Amino acid sequence: MADNKDTKLTHFDADGKAVMVDVGGKQETRRVAVAAGSVAMSRVAFDLVKSGSMAKGDVLGVARIAGIMAAKNVDRLIPLTHPLLINRAEVDFSFDEEDCRVEIEAMVSITGKTGVEMEALTAVAVAALTIYDMCKAVDKTMKISDIRLLSKTGGKSGDFSRAD
Amino acid sequence: MADNKDTKLTHFDADGKAVMVDVGGKQETRRVAVAAGSVAMSRVAFDLVKSGSMAKGDVLGVARIAGIMAAKNVDRLIPLTHPLLINRAEVDFSFDEEDCRVEIEAMVSITGKTGVEMEALTAVAVAALTIYDMCKAVDKTMKISDIRLLSKTGGKSGDFSRAD
Amino acid sequence: MADNKDTKLTHFDADGKAVMVDVGGKQETRRVAVAAGSVAMSRVAFDLVKSGSMAKGDVLGVARIAGIMAAKNVDRLIPLTHPLLINRAEVDFSFDEEDCRVEIEAMVSITGKTGVEMEALTAVAVAALTIYDMCKAVDKTMKISDIRLLSKTGGKSGDFSRAD
Amino acid sequence: MADNKDTKLTHFDADGKAVMVDVGGKQETRRVAVAAGSVAMSRVAFDLVKSGSMAKGDVLGVARIAGIMAAKNVDRLIPLTHPLLINRAEVDFSFDEEDCRVEIEAMVSITGKTGVEMEALTAVAVAALTIYDMCKAVDKTMKISDIRLLSKTGGKSGDFSRAD
Amino acid sequence: MADNKDTKLTHFDADGKAVMVDVGGKQETRRVAVAAGSVAMSRVAFDLVKSGSMAKGDVLGVARIAGIMAAKNVDRLIPLTHPLLINRAEVDFSFDEEDCRVEIEAMVSITGKTGVEMEALTAVAVAALTIYDMCKAVDKTMKISDIRLLSKTGGKSGDFSRAD
Amino acid sequence: MADNKDTKLTHFDADGKAVMVDVGGKQETRRVAVAAGSVAMSRVAFDLVKSGSMAKGDVLGVARIAGIMAAKNVDRLIPLTHPLLINRAEVDFSFDEEDCRVEIEAMVSITGKTGVEMEALTAVAVAALTIYDMCKAVDKTMKISDIRLLSKTGGKSGDFSRAD
Repeated sequence: MADNKDTKLTHFDADGKAVMVDVGGKQETRRVAVAAGSVAMSRVAFDLVKSGSMAKGDVLGVARIAGIMAAKNVDRLIPLTHPLLINRAEVDFSFDEEDCRVEIEAMVSITGKTGVEMEALTAVAVAALTIYDMCKAVDKTMKISDIRLLSKTGGKSGDFSRAD
Repeated sequence: MADNKDTKLTHFDADGKAVMVDVGGKQETRRVAVAAGSVAMSRVAFDLVKSGSMAKGDVLGVARIAGIMAAKNVDRLIPLTHPLLINRAEVDFSFDEEDCRVEIEAMVSITGKTGVEMEALTAVAVAALTIYDMCKAVDKTMKISDIRLLSKTGGKSGDFSRAD
Repeated sequence: MADNKDTKLTHFDADGKAVMVDVGGKQETRRVAVAAGSVAMSRVAFDLVKSGSMAKGDVLGVARIAGIMAAKNVDRLIPLTHPLLINRAEVDFSFDEEDCRVEIEAMVSITGKTGVEMEALTAVAVAALTIYDMCKAVDKTMKISDIRLLSKTGGKSGDFSRAD
Repeated sequence: MADNKDTKLTHFDADGKAVMVDVGGKQETRRVAVAAGSVAMSRVAFDLVKSGSMAKGDVLGVARIAGIMAAKNVDRLIPLTHPLLINRAEVDFSFDEEDCRVEIEAMVSITGKTGVEMEALTAVAVAALTIYDMCKAVDKTMKISDIRLLSKTGGKSGDFSRAD
Repeated sequence: MADNKDTKLTHFDADGKAVMVDVGGKQETRRVAVAAGSVAMSRVAFDLVKSGSMAKGDVLGVARIAGIMAAKNVDRLIPLTHPLLINRAEVDFSFDEEDCRVEIEAMVSITGKTGVEMEALTAVAVAALTIYDMCKAVDKTMKISDIRLLSKTGGKSGDFSRAD
Repeated sequence: MADNKDTKLTHFDADGKAVMVDVGGKQETRRVAVAAGSVAMSRVAFDLVKSGSMAKGDVLGVARIAGIMAAKNVDRLIPLTHPLLINRAEVDFSFDEEDCRVEIEAMVSITGKTGVEMEALTAVAVAALTIYDMCKAVDKTMKISDIRLLSKTGGKSGDFSRAD
């Protein structure tokens, strides 16, 4: 049990040294990851983002581009990740009117040897940071939360999805 | 009131077009920003991170480097930010034993024309994503939350700090 | 006359070796550069870009972000340029209805030791390439032309502007 | 007709949101793209570039390297492009004596799922910008023009070539 | 004999122009490269690095991350290299007590069309430079030496290994 | 004595955590660093590099550009370095005929708060790696050695120079 893959950190060797793990023996399969997160903000900031997304001052258009570009940049940002050739990346937004939260969802897919969870999660995080940057003159108390993996398909470790 | 800086998105001009705002007239002052966030994880993952931070498998050592490097990379990640020369960057971690959360805090300072909130927030986000990457074989349900600005000093818009 | 600065390539030393020239003795002054260029395309592509810029499919919004980000990236792209801290960057578009051309204009400013011509020109070029990328499924015969410096102020070599 | 691929911008979804399009279902085929462009300059600048390319002050040698490196950097520069593994990149120059123009031609090839038009076009554009940078002390009126795709082979959309 | 591959520089064409060579016709095979190098330093610096690697001030932990990340960055650093998708990267250190030298060894593997010698050598060089950076307040006379390829397997040109 | 700056690693805090050290209080002064190194190679490779540097196949021209660009890239490569605005960068080569060694020397200067040793050393290392890359088809036994700081002027810690 102690040797079970599920209870060991794979990014370290037996001596505890950080390594980029070998994916040479892995299958090239179609893999998809979906991640989500949210930015909570003041009513004033929220209304500005919402109106901008329809007319001028397109905060979410800029955040979408930032998120997609970040998905292509993961191997430079996260030290032990593998470079990879993503097939597709999308970033979507929706509005939680009641709590003044912009909800972010990113989907990334690849035909490759490793999953793209980190790409989807990074797209969400950087889109959220970009929203923060563009709204910070109006609201400095924004909070980025609930960055999490929603689902993951393809690859040996099997599919994963969460309810919330 | 409608023209108040606090209720306008400064990253757009009068026509709603995205711009990198002019900081040419701003003072070079000493500015410090502190941001925080957390990664909630399973007990198993939490214990692995904690033990690793003491002996082998140093998850937090790797995440610290990733966060510091990300603070230097903000102008490439967030579209409308300015390139800048940060003086200092630190990333710290603490453990919330009860809730199995790794708490992250980043501090960045500069003598420059713009604040370093985005640098501190990005350091936190990328450190959190790195922790996620290194623990995801053990726990796919981790959640990154509460990425927020704790305090900010220096600059014309005045100091800011939040209680929580 | 043969030794006149205006008839020598400053990026090479006396032996013809490429160098990044010394700007250590230069003054920090306010400098502004404006560059322009155009993308000629088919009527079909032109109409799609125009309609998109008003409603959905915002080609020019994406191209603007790409141009601004490229202005921050010049020192990585053009070998002998200096890294620098631009104060501001803007990219604008207009439509030449008759010739189906999207006209691009970029303005970059800095308080620094070197001019920002290359930053403005690169912003124009990358915005144009981005328009090309987004329209190439519709028109492969697009042509990017007339990338040129419109004006330049600040710095020892004096102001410059061209009529066309 | 309205739904024809040739009259739609593929980088936007049905709601007009920018996406990196899915190439997961595409074939890996051998693809080659050739692009061209030119830099028009004063006689003085032109002669300096020409003489340099033979003896010392090798403007075109530096521009060639910049163009090749830019071909490898397209996914960071152009927001919705895919990362890809180019097999080969070449940048060539010739002289139009009459009009004092340096003609640039770039060829890029890949065995992959997407074409390399943007890589060839970007190599031309960055080589041209580099020539501009190295000659701008001598001539500020240079003009970069006619950046266009000369030919493209491989891929589902068929071969393309233009006469001029 | 004059045409023998072993006596020609493959990164130049028949006219002496730098090119990124065509690897389109090469086989995708498993390839591994191992490189090594060393940093010689004062006894004081050496003892600090050694003690740090056991307790606090983990110089080698930081240098390992820098080396691994550099292996992913070779196509941006070395002009005529190909972008590639490495499968694995490891950086190891040992101590030559007598000569106060930190020995560095890097191993990189790939399933691809080109070898990964440059990736392994660059990982060693950047790990060495990072050690230098972190120890330079204590010793400015450090020397980085003997960066060399230890072995290489896979690919058409056959296996290679050296004794020292 | 134990607290002497000269016997402590400044890149770690009192708890042994890696930090980017604060340079906010440092003076902006003119600083220059000169570094050197060498690449030893076979007679065949050496002769190819030498002849190329005169006629076609300009190995050293490419290596010079790579070294200069690397000097601008240090803050992305070496984790705890500061971003900075170098004023000037030069890379020179000479030939040690007897030992078939290409000698590399790089000089970098800045008016800033931190020294540029790492920039000069990195320029040397990357120029050396580029030479290796371009000659490796001819000689796999090349060795990069003696990367060291030759001199350093400016800054509080005083001037430094070494004899060899």
